Order: sequence, then structure tokens, then C-alpha cells
Amino acid sequence: MIDAFRLLEIVLVVALVLLMWSSISNFASLKRMLIGRPMPSRALYTSHNQLFWLIALPILSADLYSSVAYGPEAGLAELAHVGPAANWLILPITIATVLLLFILIMSYIMGVIAYPSGGGAYTIAKDNFKSGIPALIASSSLLVDYILTVAVSISSGIVNMAAAYPILIPYQTTLAVFVIFILVIINLRGVAESARIFAWPTFFFMASMILVIIVGFINEVRYGFVQPATPPFGSVPEGLTMMVILRAFSSACSSLTGIETISNAVPIFREPQQKNAIKTYIALGVITSVTLLGFSYHLYVHGISIHPGVTALSQLLEIYFGRGILYQIIIWSTFVVLILAANSTFIGFSQLAAIVAADGFLPRAFTNRGDRLMYSNGIILLAAAASLLIIIFRANVNALIPLYAIGVFLAFTVAQIGLLRRWIRIKGPYWQLKFGINLIGTIVTALVTLIVAVTKFRSGAWIVLIILPLIILSSIAIRRHYNQTADELRIDPKTTHPEQHHVLSVVLVSGIHRVVLNTLSFATSLGTDVVAVYVGFNDESIRQMEKRWEEWGSPCRLVTLKSEYRSILRPLSKFIRRLEVKEGEAEHIHVILPQFIPRVWWHNLLHNQSALLLRAWLFRYKDVVITTVPYHLRK
Amino acid sequence: MIDAFRLLEIVLVVALVLLMWSSISNFASLKRMLIGRPMPSRALYTSHNQLFWLIALPILSADLYSSVAYGPEAGLAELAHVGPAANWLILPITIATVLLLFILIMSYIMGVIAYPSGGGAYTIAKDNFKSGIPALIASSSLLVDYILTVAVSISSGIVNMAAAYPILIPYQTTLAVFVIFILVIINLRGVAESARIFAWPTFFFMASMILVIIVGFINEVRYGFVQPATPPFGSVPEGLTMMVILRAFSSACSSLTGIETISNAVPIFREPQQKNAIKTYIALGVITSVTLLGFSYHLYVHGISIHPGVTALSQLLEIYFGRGILYQIIIWSTFVVLILAANSTFIGFSQLAAIVAADGFLPRAFTNRGDRLMYSNGIILLAAAASLLIIIFRANVNALIPLYAIGVFLAFTVAQIGLLRRWIRIKGPYWQLKFGINLIGTIVTALVTLIVAVTKFRSGAWIVLIILPLIILSSIAIRRHYNQTADELRIDPKTTHPEQHHVLSVVLVSGIHRVVLNTLSFATSLGTDVVAVYVGFNDESIRQMEKRWEEWGSPCRLVTLKSEYRSILRPLSKFIRRLEVKEGEAEHIHVILPQFIPRVWWHNLLHNQSALLLRAWLFRYKDVVITTVPYHLRK
Repeated sequence: MIDAFRLLEIVLVVALVLLMWSSISNFASLKRMLIGRPMPSRALYTSHNQLFWLIALPILSADLYSSVAYGPEAGLAELAHVGPAANWLILPITIATVLLLFILIMSYIMGVIAYPSGGGAYTIAKDNFKSGIPALIASSSLLVDYILTVAVSISSGIVNMAAAYPILIPYQTTLAVFVIFILVIINLRGVAESARIFAWPTFFFMASMILVIIVGFINEVRYGFVQPATPPFGSVPEGLTMMVILRAFSSACSSLTGIETISNAVPIFREPQQKNAIKTYIALGVITSVTLLGFSYHLYVHGISIHPGVTALSQLLEIYFGRGILYQIIIWSTFVVLILAANSTFIGFSQLAAIVAADGFLPRAFTNRGDRLMYSNGIILLAAAASLLIIIFRANVNALIPLYAIGVFLAFTVAQIGLLRRWIRIKGPYWQLKFGINLIGTIVTALVTLIVAVTKFRSGAWIVLIILPLIILSSIAIRRHYNQTADELRIDPKTTHPEQHHVLSVVLVSGIHRVVLNTLSFATSLGTDVVAVYVGFNDESIRQMEKRWEEWGSPCRLVTLKSEYRSILRPLSKFIRRLEVKEGEAEHIHVILPQFIPRVWWHNLLHNQSALLLRAWLFRYKDVVITTVPYHLRK
Repeated sequence: MIDAFRLLEIVLVVALVLLMWSSISNFASLKRMLIGRPMPSRALYTSHNQLFWLIALPILSADLYSSVAYGPEAGLAELAHVGPAANWLILPITIATVLLLFILIMSYIMGVIAYPSGGGAYTIAKDNFKSGIPALIASSSLLVDYILTVAVSISSGIVNMAAAYPILIPYQTTLAVFVIFILVIINLRGVAESARIFAWPTFFFMASMILVIIVGFINEVRYGFVQPATPPFGSVPEGLTMMVILRAFSSACSSLTGIETISNAVPIFREPQQKNAIKTYIALGVITSVTLLGFSYHLYVHGISIHPGVTALSQLLEIYFGRGILYQIIIWSTFVVLILAANSTFIGFSQLAAIVAADGFLPRAFTNRGDRLMYSNGIILLAAAASLLIIIFRANVNALIPLYAIGVFLAFTVAQIGLLRRWIRIKGPYWQLKFGINLIGTIVTALVTLIVAVTKFRSGAWIVLIILPLIILSSIAIRRHYNQTADELRIDPKTTHPEQHHVLSVVLVSGIHRVVLNTLSFATSLGTDVVAVYVGFNDESIRQMEKRWEEWGSPCRLVTLKSEYRSILRPLSKFIRRLEVKEGEAEHIHVILPQFIPRVWWHNLLHNQSALLLRAWLFRYKDVVITTVPYHLRK
């Protein structure tokens, strides 16, 4: 009856928010436990070992390669709308996808040649356009797509697990949010993207997928390439329109996200870096093509269609291996690789956000390194956005896919145009060939972007097409604000120096007790005019205070104000306005607030936080200096 | 696909939290719109008109009378576990409930006689026990039960609406949370409990229920008192144990909550107040008994059993009136009355919390009156707790019922024992009779408390039985903290006076610009020693700063600190420790932080809030005075 899991999701989201606040004292020890000891800045510059390309391959390919687990299925899901007779179309669609992969890899190899120190779409666009807009289009599209990568990869991982263990089905959303939470902690601890340990699960998954494809062919040699379940090839069922085919193609294209990782990471390769990076691109292209084609072919032969609760991969594995140990191992390795893909996206997102923020287009907080030298704010923003998507779409991969891929293809297109401009400008050896390759790349990726945007518009792409311009516009506004602020704050140190003014200190007193004593001791130690202000809620309390103040020997002048509305704010604010009018501009008005600090944090709940609220209000609306004098309770 | 309603719930809960924060500036205009203009304290003392008892009756009885809508059904739901053949037991169970109602009303009339100025269980217990524990048991139980009243009443109201309009069924939880949100706003605006307008819906609902009962009897006269659907009377189905019967009785007892309202409100009656209150109690007892008996009887005759999505009331109405206009009117009036019941609970809860908080047993914030003179914090706490219950139990009335009623009966018992002690102490006319009535009351309510606790233990009562002691223990801890704080803060004004010390002002500078200029102008205007501190992240930046400082003509001494961990906090904290050691205890260390305030609120996101974090940390861990010098950005 109790919907504890719905609560758990909320708790996890709250915990994420708390992590953001964990820089503050109270959670310091919790934070230390979760994240680990802080690391000094110099740790940044200790060079990590550079990687042999065969090791770099799996490390950099988790994102691209893992998407074979959901790409073909997403294509099938679209074809399912016109019935099983359209299933054969998954074959030409996969062939088109592989061709697209080939073109993209060629284009990206050109990128590696152009930017040996690593160049993502943002860097390429920034370098080759005068205006900042193309670079912003590229970065915003990638950031949005990274969020979707995390949402899709984790959802797909969980959905595969739920196919193996149906008991998990009702808890998919909660589990997905939980996985994000774990990834945040891992990433805040700072696992390097290049950690060799990440190579093995991906290798293992690649080997598993190749094994599945080989077992499939053996099966087909024994039982025939056309089996009872195989749908007829080439039939044109009613309702099959070009739109349906393009929509299926758009969905299948989601297998191609993550291709940019290698070109961003050229410096982690062993020398000769460019050559090794290119070698890795080609190897990755071959193995991904083989897997996509083989997997789709077997899906077709066995007439596998979309069932809620059982992924296509799980159905295929069950045909070959039953639900035995081999099935379990492959499902687990799929899960692990999809989570690794999400993990590497965390690093990519936070690094890209930091680069863009350093240029002033995003809040500067994204450039701050956390305790473990990771860009914590980017990590947490990504986690929050991906969690929100997962909760809204209830971890449904095929519902998330329509939002996906536009971003990546848009960024691809911008980067390719950038490269075109570069080849024209710089020329260099064989530049016509390189130009030609990128020209084909530009045309194809632009076309795919258009296809995805149009065919997926109504089922979700519109969300991205609304959000992207918003992000770009805010980026421009942010940059303008930074520039304006810098202008305003600039002074000429030769002509402008600090000047002394008359300071009037206003001490807020609530009675005569130790906290007030402590505050007045401080106030009267300054060389300023001091006046004490008491706000009473009725005449009686004001008379009382005046009498007691006199009995105390009037440590300074006392002003009493009456509040009709039980708020200290109004009379105090009126009083300050009166002072401002009387004293003119050159005067510093200085409000001193007593505040007592309990020994135990929960005791804060027991005391009115009026000093805090007052401070926040004065800060925002008045030009007064505010001092808080703490009194630390002993008990 | 999109679970927007789950999101909406979260949004509403967040909005509730924002309302708590709405005292702060940014939301001031929103708050004004929702809550209305602030009211002066003197408005409290304008006497409201006192009420004729027949008008007071419906106003004070919404809580008790509305529970006929769910009480008998909750009993039936328990009996349903042993099959429809047990349905006849609802008749003896309702008779027992009515007897219990009679005993409770008699006992409460004794309470009215003893405390003519209005005495709830808390007041009675506080007045008649030396220890504070019984009073705390009473208040905590009532507070917990008020929360449940809101959750149950609103859920029941929504479930009845959903029975009439099945399209609402998937959105029950969201709608219930939404209703709470509306009630919070209404209550923060400050609707007086005694508003005459509240009389009419309850009158109307009473009339409707009586009409239903009369129509029922006419129907039975025409078609026979035993109809085809009537289950056999007196059969003992397999599995029918004493436990099942007691459990059904416990659930049915939930109809008796809210009975204490009249005894709390004696002062709103016209003179002679006590006599009119007693008259009202008797009238309410008669009409509630008639309704409970009649309603249960018709439920039995028509063999109505529990169906998800259709309340028993809705089923009965459908038999008599179809789904026509009469059905709609009665369902709507049921809804309105249940919401009114929740509304009056808001007032009861916040007033009780304020009384208990005034005695130091709850955070003092509960005694603060909001803009419209209502106890806002109590209102918001109640709303948050009830929303949480509704979300956890998905607005399922029969799942909430087991948690319900223990609290009320526990408070009843404590109050009765208190009255027993009072009669022994004070005696007075007919005291033996009064003592006797309260003795019977004590025994019966104690017994009912025990029955509810035991029979409902596993299905939810354990939650309440864990939470109650926790609340009581924290109340004691809270009171102890307040007493200790008061002791610590007390000073003797004759011997203790403010003393002047040497003040060292430490100004944090981040470079040479207008904000720093502004801050140094203030710092050097105080008559204190001033030292500027610069924290650099590497040697280069430190050298640079030292050079520029000198070029600026060194407005004061500059200390540079190097941070290895990219945090200003560590080096600054170390520096302060060094100062403390050097300067000894008598010294005030005074940290001055520059902070710039953007013109637009969202610009805050673009600037590191390091001054804020630094301030929070220093506050908690260091005994330093902190001054923030604002610089208001012009653009």
C-alpha cells in the first residue's frame, strides 16, 4: 500500500541537493566519507601514463559501442507501429546507419588531423568562426545530448536488468535514479576517464556481442537462414510510408552518439598520438559496424519484436542460451557497459561545461574544481537534469530516444562546417581531399539532423528545439552580464583610493542579556557613533525596556520603535530610511545584529532566525553594511 | 508516457516550502497576492460576535459529523476480509460506536462544566497533573491525530469525488495535495473558525444525510426490509474471530474523532455559554447517532460492500437516486464538508501547537503570528506532514484509518483522568456524579485506546506508537534547551556592563577593483587595526597581487596566503587561528567580507557565493565577528 519507492526517489533527489550544499560545515564529515580527502591542486599536473591504442579503444568507446544495446531496438520500435511485416526494414536501415557511421568516422579523422591536441565541436567552431554563435550551438547541443545520454544509457541498463529479473520492473525509475546517485559520488571522488580498469568490461562486452553474432550464424547454418519466425523480406505492409522509415532510421541513429569521444582525447594516446587515434577510430568503426549489422540481422531472422519488459537483446539471448549462466553474464556486462557510458558522459559534460564557462558563457561556478579536482557543479547539474528526465519519462528508453541524437548531429554539423572553413583558410597538404570528406560529412550530418528534427518533432524533439535556443540566448546574456560587471568594477589604481567616512553603527537589541552585552562590547570598541535600537510590539514592552536600559546605565543612546505588524523589518527599514535622508550619501550606515549560535545544529530550529531573514532583506534592499556578532552558546 | 502528475506533486510540495521562505524579500509580492495585506496586531482584540447555539452547531461539528462519510465504510472494509456473510456485524458495531459516542459526549460535557473558558485535553492535563508528561501525551497525540484528520478527510473527500467522476481516479493523490495547498493559502489568509458562512454547507450535508436515511426507509417500506441483496443476519462465516470484530470496531471508531472541538470553543457561544455548549453537544450527539445508525442500516440492507473506486456512500446514493442531479449535489456537499473538516483542523492544530510552544515544549516559532495573525508555521507544518502521508498512502482512506483514532482516544483518556483528579481535589456540587461519569469515560476510552492499538498494531498503529514517544522526548529536550539558554543568557545589569576591547579587522581582498575599494573605504573608516588578506592559488598570482597593492599605495598592511586546495577557507581559518593564539582572549577578531549584490536575482547564479559559504563556516566554527560590505551592481 505504501508507495515507499516514490518517496525514495524524492529522498535521492534531496540527497543530490544536499551534496551541492555539502561544502557547508554541517555535512563536512559525511562529505569526507562519500567523496574522500581533498586533493591539492598540484596533483592536476602529475602526468598520467599515456595509453597503448588497443587499451584506449575500449576506454574511449563505451559511449558509442554501448548504444548498440538500444539503437536497433529503437528502430524496431518505430517499425512496430505498422506491424511485424515491416520488420525486414531494420536491415536496410542498419546498413544506412553503418554508412553514416563510416562517413562520421572519416570526418572525425579529419578533425583529429586538424586538432592534434584534441578538439571537440566547441573548440573547432570557436576556432573557425568569427561569431561565437556556432560554438554556442555546438556546446549547447552537446550538453543537452550528454544529459540525454546519461538518461538513455542508465534507463537502458536498468531495462536490460529488469528483463533478466522481472521482479525489478516496478522499481526501474527508482533504481535508475539510484544509479545516477552512485555515479555522482564516484565522479565527485574523481575517477580518471583514462583508468585502465574501465577497459576490461567494455572489452568483455565487445567479445560477448561478437560471440552472440557468431553463435547466431552457427544457429542459422544449422536451422536455416529463413526460420519459421522470420518475417517475409521486402513486403510492403499497409501504412508503411517514407515517414515511418525515416522515423525508424532516426531512432536507429541513436546508436551513433558518443563518436566524438576519441577526437576529444587525442592527448591520452601514446606517440605517435594522431596515428594511434586514427587507428582506434578505424578499429572502433569496424567492430561497431560488424556488431550493428550482425545484431540487426539476427533480430530479423528470429522475428524479434518489441515487448514491454523484455528488451530485444534479452529475447535474442534467450533463444540462443536460454536463461542460463551465459545469458546472465551477457546481460550483466551490458548493464555494466551502459553504466560506464553514462560515467564517461559525466566527465565529458563537466569538462565541456568548464571550458564554455571559462569563456564566460556559463556560470563561472562550472570552472571550480571540487575537493578531488573534478568539476563538481557540472557533475551535479548533469545528475539533476538526467534524474528529472528519468523520473518524467519513467526510465522508458523508447520514449527518451526522440529527444536524443538531434543535439549530437547538430554539433557534428557545426564542427564539420568549421573544418571546411579551416581547410579553405589554412589549406596544407591534400586539403582538397580533406575538404571533400568534410563536405560530404557536412551534407550528410545536416541532412540527418533535419530528418531527426522533422520525424521526431511531435514525439519529443520539439522539447530540445525549444530548449536549445533558450540555452544559447541565456549564454549570450550571461556573457554580457560578465562583461558589464567587469567594466563596472574596473578602477584606475592611480587615481582611486579608499576614503574615510563617518560611520553610524546601529545595534539591534532585544532586551538586556548576555548576547546583547557581547554585541554592545564589540560595537562600543569600534571608533564609530553607536545607537541601540529596540523594536517593541506594544507600548508596555517599550516602557519596560527604556526603564531597564536606564538602570543598566545607558551604555549608549537607545531608540525605541513600535511595530504594529509583529515584524522587526518594517520599523527598522523606516528608521534606516530616515537616517539616510538625514545623513546624506557620504555616510556609511552600519547595522550590527546579535546572533547566537547553538552548540548542536538542531537547536537552530528552536530559535527564531530573525537575524538571518533581516540580514537577507537589508542586503537586498538597502545600502547598509551588516555585521553579525556571534554568541556561541555553551550548553 | 510522461508522468506529469508525479512531478506536479513534487512541485506543490516545493511550493509549500517556498511559502515558508516567503518572508524573504524575493517572494514578497507573490506572498502579498496569495495571502493578502498584513494586519496590525490590534486586530486581534476586536471581539467577534458570539454565536447562537444552532449556528455554532454546524460550525463546530464539521470535523465530527463529516466522519460519518468514512467511518462505517472503514468498518465494512475490515469485515470484508471474511467475506460478505459478515456484513451484518456492521449493525452491532455501529450500535457500540453510538454508545461510545454517548459516553464521550457525557464526559465532554463534564469538561465543559469544569473549564467554562474552554479546555482541551492539554489544558485539562496541565491543570490537574504535577508532572508535565500527561499534558505532553495529550498534546502530542492530538497533534498527530490532527495531521491524520487532514489526510483522511481530504482523501475521503477526493475519493468520493472520484466515485462520482471516475476520470479523476488516477489523479487522486495529486488532487488531494492540491486541496491541501489551497487550504494552506486560505488559512494563511486567516479565515476565522467561527465564520458564519461555514455553517451552511454542514447544515446542508446534515440535511442531505437525513434525507438519504428517510428515502432509504421509504424504499424499504415499499420493497421490503429484507431485500434480495441483504446478507443473512447473524450468520457466523468461517474466519470470523473476535479479533476481526474488534478491528472493524476500531475502524468504525474513526467516526468519533473531532468531538473535542466544542469543548475547546466554549467562549464563542452566546450567554449562557456553558448551557449553550451542552445543548449543542446533545444535539450533535443525537444527529450523529441517527445518521450513523441509519446509514449503516441501509448499507446492510442493500448488501453494499467495498469496491475500489466507488465509496459506500456513492453506491447507496446510486441505488436511491441513480447518477442524477441529487446524487451529484450530495456527493459535492460531502466533499465540501470533508474539506471544511480539514480546514477546521488547520485552525485547531496551529492553535494547540502555539499553546504548547508558549510553554516551551515546541519550537518558539509556532507562537509567531503571520501577516494575517494566523500561526503560519503550524499551518505549514500540518500541511507538509499531511501531504507526506497522502503521498505515501496514495490518498487511500482505508489504509490511513489504522493510524488514526489512537491519538484521539489516548488524549481523551488523559483528559478524563485529569478531570477525575480535579473532582477529587475540588469536589463541588454533585461531584460524585461527575466523578462517576468521568470514571466510566476513563475506563471506556482507555479500553478503546487499547483495542485500537492492539488490533491495528500491525497495519499501521505501530507507526504512531513509535512517533508519539519520540515527540514527547523531543518536547522535553526542547524545554530543557530553552531553560538552559535562558540561564546562560541571564546577566546582572548592576554588575555586568559592556567593555571595550582592541579590535583587529581582517579584510578579505580578491584583487583591486571597485568592490574592494568600497570595502576598504568602510574598513579604514572604523577606528580599528586593519589588515588586508589575499588568498592566491599559486605563487604567480600572489606576486602579482603584492606588486599591484604596492602600486595602489598600500592602503593598509597586506598579508598573502597560498591555498593548495583551491579553497579560501582553509588558509583563512589557519590565519585566524594564528591571530587567536597571538592576541589572546580579550581581542575581537573582525572579518570583513566584500559582497556584490546583482541587480537581478538570477545574476546571483553567475557569481561564486564564496562569501556566503565562508560566512556560514566562520560563524559556526570560529568566534569572530563578521561584517559584509555590500556593493550593489548598477547593471
